[in-house]
Amino acid sequence: MLSVVSRLSEYDSLRKVYHQKRDGESFPSSEALHEVVNLTRSIIFPGYYGDSSVDLSTLQYYIGVSVDKLTNVLQEQILSGFLFGSSSETEYEQLKLKSKELANRFVANLPSLRDTLVCDVEAAYYGDPAAKSFSEIIFCYPAVKAISNYRIAHELLTYGVPLIPRMITEMAHSETGIDIHPGATIGKYFTIDHGTGVVIGETCIIGEHVKIYQGVTLGAKSFQLDEQGNPVKNIERHPIIEDNVIIYANATILGRITIGRDSVIGGNVCVTSDVSPCTKIVQPHSNL
Amino acid sequence: MLSVVSRLSEYDSLRKVYHQKRDGESFPSSEALHEVVNLTRSIIFPGYYGDSSVDLSTLQYYIGVSVDKLTNVLQEQILSGFLFGSSSETEYEQLKLKSKELANRFVANLPSLRDTLVCDVEAAYYGDPAAKSFSEIIFCYPAVKAISNYRIAHELLTYGVPLIPRMITEMAHSETGIDIHPGATIGKYFTIDHGTGVVIGETCIIGEHVKIYQGVTLGAKSFQLDEQGNPVKNIERHPIIEDNVIIYANATILGRITIGRDSVIGGNVCVTSDVSPCTKIVQPHSNL
Amino acid sequence: MLSVVSRLSEYDSLRKVYHQKRDGESFPSSEALHEVVNLTRSIIFPGYYGDSSVDLSTLQYYIGVSVDKLTNVLQEQILSGFLFGSSSETEYEQLKLKSKELANRFVANLPSLRDTLVCDVEAAYYGDPAAKSFSEIIFCYPAVKAISNYRIAHELLTYGVPLIPRMITEMAHSETGIDIHPGATIGKYFTIDHGTGVVIGETCIIGEHVKIYQGVTLGAKSFQLDEQGNPVKNIERHPIIEDNVIIYANATILGRITIGRDSVIGGNVCVTSDVSPCTKIVQPHSNL
Amino acid sequence: MLSVVSRLSEYDSLRKVYHQKRDGESFPSSEALHEVVNLTRSIIFPGYYGDSSVDLSTLQYYIGVSVDKLTNVLQEQILSGFLFGSSSETEYEQLKLKSKELANRFVANLPSLRDTLVCDVEAAYYGDPAAKSFSEIIFCYPAVKAISNYRIAHELLTYGVPLIPRMITEMAHSETGIDIHPGATIGKYFTIDHGTGVVIGETCIIGEHVKIYQGVTLGAKSFQLDEQGNPVKNIERHPIIEDNVIIYANATILGRITIGRDSVIGGNVCVTSDVSPCTKIVQPHSNL
Amino acid sequence: MLSVVSRLSEYDSLRKVYHQKRDGESFPSSEALHEVVNLTRSIIFPGYYGDSSVDLSTLQYYIGVSVDKLTNVLQEQILSGFLFGSSSETEYEQLKLKSKELANRFVANLPSLRDTLVCDVEAAYYGDPAAKSFSEIIFCYPAVKAISNYRIAHELLTYGVPLIPRMITEMAHSETGIDIHPGATIGKYFTIDHGTGVVIGETCIIGEHVKIYQGVTLGAKSFQLDEQGNPVKNIERHPIIEDNVIIYANATILGRITIGRDSVIGGNVCVTSDVSPCTKIVQPHSNL
Amino acid sequence: MLSVVSRLSEYDSLRKVYHQKRDGESFPSSEALHEVVNLTRSIIFPGYYGDSSVDLSTLQYYIGVSVDKLTNVLQEQILSGFLFGSSSETEYEQLKLKSKELANRFVANLPSLRDTLVCDVEAAYYGDPAAKSFSEIIFCYPAVKAISNYRIAHELLTYGVPLIPRMITEMAHSETGIDIHPGATIGKYFTIDHGTGVVIGETCIIGEHVKIYQGVTLGAKSFQLDEQGNPVKNIERHPIIEDNVIIYANATILGRITIGRDSVIGGNVCVTSDVSPCTKIVQPHSNL
Repeated sequence: MLSVVSRLSEYDSLRKVYHQKRDGESFPSSEALHEVVNLTRSIIFPGYYGDSSVDLSTLQYYIGVSVDKLTNVLQEQILSGFLFGSSSETEYEQLKLKSKELANRFVANLPSLRDTLVCDVEAAYYGDPAAKSFSEIIFCYPAVKAISNYRIAHELLTYGVPLIPRMITEMAHSETGIDIHPGATIGKYFTIDHGTGVVIGETCIIGEHVKIYQGVTLGAKSFQLDEQGNPVKNIERHPIIEDNVIIYANATILGRITIGRDSVIGGNVCVTSDVSPCTKIVQPHSNL
Repeated sequence: MLSVVSRLSEYDSLRKVYHQKRDGESFPSSEALHEVVNLTRSIIFPGYYGDSSVDLSTLQYYIGVSVDKLTNVLQEQILSGFLFGSSSETEYEQLKLKSKELANRFVANLPSLRDTLVCDVEAAYYGDPAAKSFSEIIFCYPAVKAISNYRIAHELLTYGVPLIPRMITEMAHSETGIDIHPGATIGKYFTIDHGTGVVIGETCIIGEHVKIYQGVTLGAKSFQLDEQGNPVKNIERHPIIEDNVIIYANATILGRITIGRDSVIGGNVCVTSDVSPCTKIVQPHSNL
Repeated sequence: MLSVVSRLSEYDSLRKVYHQKRDGESFPSSEALHEVVNLTRSIIFPGYYGDSSVDLSTLQYYIGVSVDKLTNVLQEQILSGFLFGSSSETEYEQLKLKSKELANRFVANLPSLRDTLVCDVEAAYYGDPAAKSFSEIIFCYPAVKAISNYRIAHELLTYGVPLIPRMITEMAHSETGIDIHPGATIGKYFTIDHGTGVVIGETCIIGEHVKIYQGVTLGAKSFQLDEQGNPVKNIERHPIIEDNVIIYANATILGRITIGRDSVIGGNVCVTSDVSPCTKIVQPHSNL
Repeated sequence: MLSVVSRLSEYDSLRKVYHQKRDGESFPSSEALHEVVNLTRSIIFPGYYGDSSVDLSTLQYYIGVSVDKLTNVLQEQILSGFLFGSSSETEYEQLKLKSKELANRFVANLPSLRDTLVCDVEAAYYGDPAAKSFSEIIFCYPAVKAISNYRIAHELLTYGVPLIPRMITEMAHSETGIDIHPGATIGKYFTIDHGTGVVIGETCIIGEHVKIYQGVTLGAKSFQLDEQGNPVKNIERHPIIEDNVIIYANATILGRITIGRDSVIGGNVCVTSDVSPCTKIVQPHSNL
Repeated sequence: MLSVVSRLSEYDSLRKVYHQKRDGESFPSSEALHEVVNLTRSIIFPGYYGDSSVDLSTLQYYIGVSVDKLTNVLQEQILSGFLFGSSSETEYEQLKLKSKELANRFVANLPSLRDTLVCDVEAAYYGDPAAKSFSEIIFCYPAVKAISNYRIAHELLTYGVPLIPRMITEMAHSETGIDIHPGATIGKYFTIDHGTGVVIGETCIIGEHVKIYQGVTLGAKSFQLDEQGNPVKNIERHPIIEDNVIIYANATILGRITIGRDSVIGGNVCVTSDVSPCTKIVQPHSNL
Repeated sequence: MLSVVSRLSEYDSLRKVYHQKRDGESFPSSEALHEVVNLTRSIIFPGYYGDSSVDLSTLQYYIGVSVDKLTNVLQEQILSGFLFGSSSETEYEQLKLKSKELANRFVANLPSLRDTLVCDVEAAYYGDPAAKSFSEIIFCYPAVKAISNYRIAHELLTYGVPLIPRMITEMAHSETGIDIHPGATIGKYFTIDHGTGVVIGETCIIGEHVKIYQGVTLGAKSFQLDEQGNPVKNIERHPIIEDNVIIYANATILGRITIGRDSVIGGNVCVTSDVSPCTKIVQPHSNL
């Protein structure tokens, strides 16, 4: 056993696979990010998430405690995100201050986040004949989980926080099978039905009142390599979906193309070029 | 922070996102429903689920305890399902009695549930060359988890229990990526291979000896809106799949159409109109 | 209740659904296998998985402890895998020795496993413009989780260990939606993007530098039944994918066919016959 | 095994050792009572117990939540205490209302409970040269734990709540070795040093500024039997300790006697008759 | 750090402080012994300990499961007790069989253990005016915990099981402050009031209807050394307490002396020689 | 409820009972100190505490990991101890460095701590005829737990660490009923038999080869008040016990007196003045 341990501990073998924590660095933590998400949900949807025994007379206490805890946990996680990839020792205090400021900014934005999520819940309700009530959607629809994680993550990404947003959407990905990159831009009244297998890429732009079904990919077609053969980062390579578009199950839409407003994309279609507004694309012999 | 807490606690902001629990109401609980599912599995498949040390001489004790606990937990969850959406205070005692009666009815039906699930296990075994034994299927096939949750949930739905059935199938959805609406009607010897991304809609009717693969959608094509623009609920809008049909990976079957018996639907096909019995539908140039 | 318990405890009803543990047998345990996977990850990628406070001066202690624990837990699980399906009492001591030997063999192979996984991480980095760093890929890409579980499981399968390999890949299947059968043969520099819904069958052979997207199935088309109507086991029935192939989202490739090197398979295509090298297959009107 | 189980399940064998729960009865729960004590401590001593991250700006939220939770948990435990020994089915609703009212009464009394406990902390500080600060006493002196449990339990006992008070003092007994019967009456500025082995009986009356050391018993000497040979309950049979008395380690004071104010009882003395005020009782040859 | 780790890992430094586990040896486990005690309590006092929802119609199932689990856990612990101090490799299989046989013997004796403990509960009830009911004594008196652990441990000690009995009484010692050596012999209707600080030595013999109070020691006075200066083991060196004796708080009784039947020993007395029957020993000036 | 929450949140009511944490301060944590103690025990007594599967070939890895973790956890706890009572913001970085240095000093002293504890184990073995082996003493004697916690705490106290030492001895006090102040000075080969109720005060000085029994108090007789009526801290007020003294159960020794070498103090004696060497003090009529 000694020799295996030695070989596994050699610097050369470790070079690409080892993370050296800096002194005082706390690692980004899935557990803490679960708490971030749960606290946010309990603030946005009190009574459904978090302590179910709240009533209107005590609600402010519960929201106050959740907001305070969220601020603290989020601040630590933002900081650990900054430190994860950072190489300089000197900026620790500065990053700590910045993390505190960003956590406060996130918290100040919670009322607006609630407004946006209410619209998403409404879209789910009006788009699904099987939905019995708003309650049922808030309480058990996976799309609400995936979209709320995305909206939290997207907010943090716009602040420039590294890693943490991706971890938050991956948590929803694992739970719901819906993989929305935090970099995507998604309008109001967005809904996903069933959702397993949905992929929405980093540079997607999605309008309002868009509805997509399980297995839909909004992906990239191909991508440029730079002179060293590395993929060029930050190229706009994913689709633009305009308002009121519906995309049926397992459709695959690839590349920086535009699906015009009020269009319908049928199941299992692979679309790789622009679609004019008000168009219906289906497999041969299919009708919707 | 005070002002954010205040805004988040205002009645207007809360109206659509807040659940006010009634006095004495216990909330439907994912944890308790996990226990319902685990107890049911340990009764149906003793030795595989629950305590693995049972032997034939002590089995009756273990089953007796599991049945007793299941009755209690299920009764509470049924009651909390009824209360979740109910608005009247007066019917509490009546709902409590009804919940007890329904929990007992569910338990009395367990031998029959075992018989049905044995058929599903057999279908999985005879339909998968990679399957090594019944044991392997019972112990680690995700389809068995998804189908057993569906059969539990469907039984409860036929009793008129709200919310709880949907929560039970969502638990399997999250674990396996298989989303079967508890309202669907599914015959014996049903099997799903791999299963991630499978969606089976609320009003589907599936015959016996049907086999479907990962990514298959049995969904709705479009749906009616009522005069207020709300989707009309309870319309039959999902496919009917007759006996002995096989549906390959990523096929999408939409609308109240019938796939006739002994038909085969190929991978990635999107079908939106009736298919006669004994028909094979594939993508151009594919053969199965 | 008595009569239900009695009926559920009758031998006839139990015959197909009951696992009788042998004396001294310990059951394969999901919890223990999670530990196997976590320990392996913490040895392969120290600092990312396991205790994040390791530094180069103490690393050997942490790796030493993890290797020792892994050896013990794995040995028990290998043994329980052997016993799960075994019928003879006499071979217990022999299987115990064999399990110990195989656990040691697995551990001795860890440096090589690390080398292979480093290649997979590189492939993910160079194949995804959204990837920010090796760190991000190791720390939060689901493909790394699914592929590392597969490579652990495949190694154990080549030793002839029953059941355990399948349980290990099912754990990744549930977490990531990626279902790779441990029997598949997969070359170096393999990467899966997003991944939900991917299925890779038991007898697949995949070359080097292959990249596949979410929803891709590498499955079987149909299979032979023997004279009793049982599926014939161990037939080569899944595709061969040669080097440098890219397969886009939701493509379905079925049967013992060969996709020649440097080919590209477009989204939502269903392929059921051989594809020559350097070929691009797309849906009509799609271009990649 | 069957016969042992049968014998253990026979009614005759069970008669004296079996608790038959009534329908809807929830059992008094050590876990819930630990929560009652912890919530009370976190309200009385915020920052020391409960969440240590509170600051003055958010304190009201934390206290609000703790008070709300305490009310709910305490109400349930009071109810289960009433039901534990009760035999009539009809009074359930009445006892539920009463429990709610008593839980509210307890909560309304919390400010006064805090005042009393502050006095006890002061007494500990001024009575122990080893004490470094109020903080140290609040945070780690076992006497504070034992006395606060006693004061909580005594309050509930004066409301007529059965069983629960005793369980609360037993929790402190197990943790600290200090056994104060909830029925005892104890004045302000009470302190116990070290405390292991202290016993304070049900009908004790203790004045203000009393200090006792480890191993001190304030017990009963003997007790009357009624005509059936049962001990007569509720007889005043324990000592009265007047103001400013100090009792040294391992002294035993038995019976309804009075230790007059400003007296000192030396270590290991057994006192069974009245002691006049300002008296010092020691073992022969001892001096204090 | 390296040098400290090296010094701490040197064989010489380790010689007296290191336990080398033999292959296959499972270590005696506090957690498992807690389960042994909890299962035994739940069998003896169903409804008070274990699942509180049992009723007479389901009791046999609960007792059946508890008995089966107890048999398994106890068997393992007995075996690990035998192995703990054993030096020979060859007797493993033999010890395993013996452990199984002893666990079965213990279980067969449970009805008799229940009878004995009922007597102890009765003694506590009739001996304590503060006791409100049998229920209260079973449910929250520390003496019942200490005495039941002792009776379990004593039974195992008479079977020749090493270490395990001592661990079981130490668990009660830690929880209640009552330290009864499992080797002591204690008659029926034994009760301890309050109990903290009670010590009952290895070779004590206690009759029936004996009652002792907190802080009482039944200990050894001095002991012989053998020629190497080691204490001679297994000498009868603790008191004999005859029937109907009462011993008050903090009394210390030392050496192989006899306290004759119907005697009363007063508080804080130290007795080191025989006491005739019907004698009352008190401190000067005390009366009881 | 509002008014109670308000009253409890008022600054005046909070003044004496509220701990305001400073920014960045982490609170002393019982849980972390339990880890400190468990890690130390697992280093001192490997195989008995911590992972029981260590063997000589892997021991260095386990000790290495434990030493590394201990250093980290201890450093944090030392820091939080310093911050607990500190009022200045400016010294944070300085205290952090100091804490690290002290944690390293503690770790460097572990081999010596092991040597001392081996002597205590030997003393327990040679002083107790009921002891079967060194193993049994290390594994289950409460005295070993209490004395090892004391020796850890005493070491930290000599470094000037506040609060933490006291918390460590209180943990042992709660578990074993033995209350040793970390300030006491205790020589080698110290043993306590049974131990419940033992109290050893802050300024005690105990020689080598001293043995004490349960219920023994080495306490203070009375203490000076300063001009404000506060007790004068740091006065030498507890006994000096010279080498080879034995003190029997429930003896109480009070004040700065000296018990001369080779003396024996009998059970239940209260001693308040010097005892010459080689003296035996007993209650009248007792003999030892």
